[in-house]
Amino acid sequence: MRVFIAGADGYLGWTLAQHLARKGHVIGGADALLRRGWVEEMGSVSAIPIVPVDERLAAFGEHFGEPLRFLELNLCDHAALCVALAEFQPDVVVHLAECPSAPYSMMDFPHADFVQRNNVSGTLSLLFAMRDHCPKAHLVKLGTMGEYGTPNLDIPEGFFEVEYRGRRDRLPFPRQAGSWYHWSKVFDSHHVDFACRLWGLRATDVMQGVVYGTWCDTDMRLNTRLDFDEAFGTALNRFCCQAVIGQPLMPYGKGTQLRGFLSLADSMQCLTLAIENPAAAGEYRVFNQLREVLSINDLAQLVRAAGQDFGLAVEIKLQNNPRVEAEAHHYRPDSQHLRALGFEPSLPIDEVVRNMIADLLPHRDRIADHAERLAPTVRWRTS
Amino acid sequence: MRVFIAGADGYLGWTLAQHLARKGHVIGGADALLRRGWVEEMGSVSAIPIVPVDERLAAFGEHFGEPLRFLELNLCDHAALCVALAEFQPDVVVHLAECPSAPYSMMDFPHADFVQRNNVSGTLSLLFAMRDHCPKAHLVKLGTMGEYGTPNLDIPEGFFEVEYRGRRDRLPFPRQAGSWYHWSKVFDSHHVDFACRLWGLRATDVMQGVVYGTWCDTDMRLNTRLDFDEAFGTALNRFCCQAVIGQPLMPYGKGTQLRGFLSLADSMQCLTLAIENPAAAGEYRVFNQLREVLSINDLAQLVRAAGQDFGLAVEIKLQNNPRVEAEAHHYRPDSQHLRALGFEPSLPIDEVVRNMIADLLPHRDRIADHAERLAPTVRWRTS
Repeated sequence: MRVFIAGADGYLGWTLAQHLARKGHVIGGADALLRRGWVEEMGSVSAIPIVPVDERLAAFGEHFGEPLRFLELNLCDHAALCVALAEFQPDVVVHLAECPSAPYSMMDFPHADFVQRNNVSGTLSLLFAMRDHCPKAHLVKLGTMGEYGTPNLDIPEGFFEVEYRGRRDRLPFPRQAGSWYHWSKVFDSHHVDFACRLWGLRATDVMQGVVYGTWCDTDMRLNTRLDFDEAFGTALNRFCCQAVIGQPLMPYGKGTQLRGFLSLADSMQCLTLAIENPAAAGEYRVFNQLREVLSINDLAQLVRAAGQDFGLAVEIKLQNNPRVEAEAHHYRPDSQHLRALGFEPSLPIDEVVRNMIADLLPHRDRIADHAERLAPTVRWRTS
Repeated sequence: MRVFIAGADGYLGWTLAQHLARKGHVIGGADALLRRGWVEEMGSVSAIPIVPVDERLAAFGEHFGEPLRFLELNLCDHAALCVALAEFQPDVVVHLAECPSAPYSMMDFPHADFVQRNNVSGTLSLLFAMRDHCPKAHLVKLGTMGEYGTPNLDIPEGFFEVEYRGRRDRLPFPRQAGSWYHWSKVFDSHHVDFACRLWGLRATDVMQGVVYGTWCDTDMRLNTRLDFDEAFGTALNRFCCQAVIGQPLMPYGKGTQLRGFLSLADSMQCLTLAIENPAAAGEYRVFNQLREVLSINDLAQLVRAAGQDFGLAVEIKLQNNPRVEAEAHHYRPDSQHLRALGFEPSLPIDEVVRNMIADLLPHRDRIADHAERLAPTVRWRTS
């Protein structure tokens, strides 16, 4: 298939391009390279060294034969996006081109506004461009499990049958996001759903759990980034970085918050299943993409245990919670759709964590040089 | 009370400023005057003549003693908005400063994107400015009943108690908007709710039905606008304009779509009740603001009957529906909150329609000069 990856320079996008090329798909991509600047703005770097995009693309061509047809492009640049899609004629568009950070969006008004405009306007631009230039292509858009929040109900995959005052309907499951960033993802989901109803586009909307894992190659030009700063590092990735530099792990609040998680390798498997099993014309389907539900404290314990195998003494220090979130709550999300398509979780989480620590140890100095960027400074209430 | 009206030059805003001033409130206001340009862009004019904003303000000062402290200001201009709120120190902020047109948002990508950025970014800017400069002020924000769409359930006021797989929660009622404009209003509602949870702001979110009615004064500088073009004219206002120029009324589709309606006078009464009975700190409350549920055909019949009193022969001609919407559907919205605060509907709709026709007849030539702007040209599927 011809797969156009928006966000091809990112943590998931760069990995996915390789994963799909290895399976024989033809890859096109776009990226505005903003993530590199955001992490720099946070005073940080990727723990795993990455090379400039032109070197990445050279390596891609050498390893996979077919080049990655790449454009430096912001999805909000609607005219340029239209040209790109008209020329590439994708069978699948994978949309990973969003600013993915809750703390970044909570810093102040300019950051909140930027994240929302970037994400929501970019997605809207993409939907119109697909309508006009590749209406039969299948959109695989990355959402987040964070769109649902933590209701006191089980979380279905996007929609639920509900009875109210004796009447029944199938309705979108109510979203209760917890940051301006997470709201931008909710809005994107509504937009994609609406475009499918309106224009007959086909889409899979992936409500993804928190992803962890490294992607390193003997040719380091193929490495994907791994962030650990407070804004762009996700929980388990940050904990592993803290473990290798001897900094205490920092669960927020009581650490009893439950979330869905999956490894980068499992994310690649799931996205590939969605890509290779397209939605029907006019269909908007939602996949909850996660492997397991764990607490933040569970993650900390996993990292502590894995650290011991490497002789690392890992401390755990609860932090005042900078976020506004429930710490004791029900959490039982459905995730049957991907299992039904054949998702078979690969390595268990403790093995992935050991692999991550092994990948990160050679780069401990890089992380240690930015050790102060791991502590939370952005606060939800007073930012 | 000191009331800051964002959107003070609009159909509702200009009327509300006068209604509140007459009750002794001190009025400040802002408006970017964009509505005047949008209607011009649609090739149309206000059926009821209006004067430039400086003449309006002069008239306001003469009639109400106290001047309206007005700024030409876009809410997206965050720095200027902060100064305005810090200086005026409102007890209440009424947010009517949005682009209110579904068809305008459905024209093409630039219009869809503009409407969303204008509305969503403006509201976000206002929330941050209130947090920083008047955190105790009560926000009264205008939403729309259109946010709910037409689910096969009764429509509660914002939230509902729901049982699902044996567990219960009070959740936001799912929103199913029908245009990019309506989605922008949904996103605004989520933002206001989130800001109340996050920062303890207090807000009343008004899900308003479709408003109809003229507001004319012996001093015509106090008139409020009344639009009839396909984008900015609402159903009943358009029908009345069609009646006075002898153009057939044009219900879309079968005309059996049900919606909530209320007159401009009732809207003023309801908004005033919300303003004078503020929400508590941290409270986000939703009022469904409507008087009656009617079909589009009901409106047409009302206008036909009222037209006869003026010797107008009113034809009704169903149009191919340019929108994507259900034409036969359940519709039973709650609207108890405003009744509990004392809302007493004023004139019945047939009398309001007669008054509208009387107000519009002197301006039939103005409307007739733009008669072709009444027919729908923007189509939801192919725009």
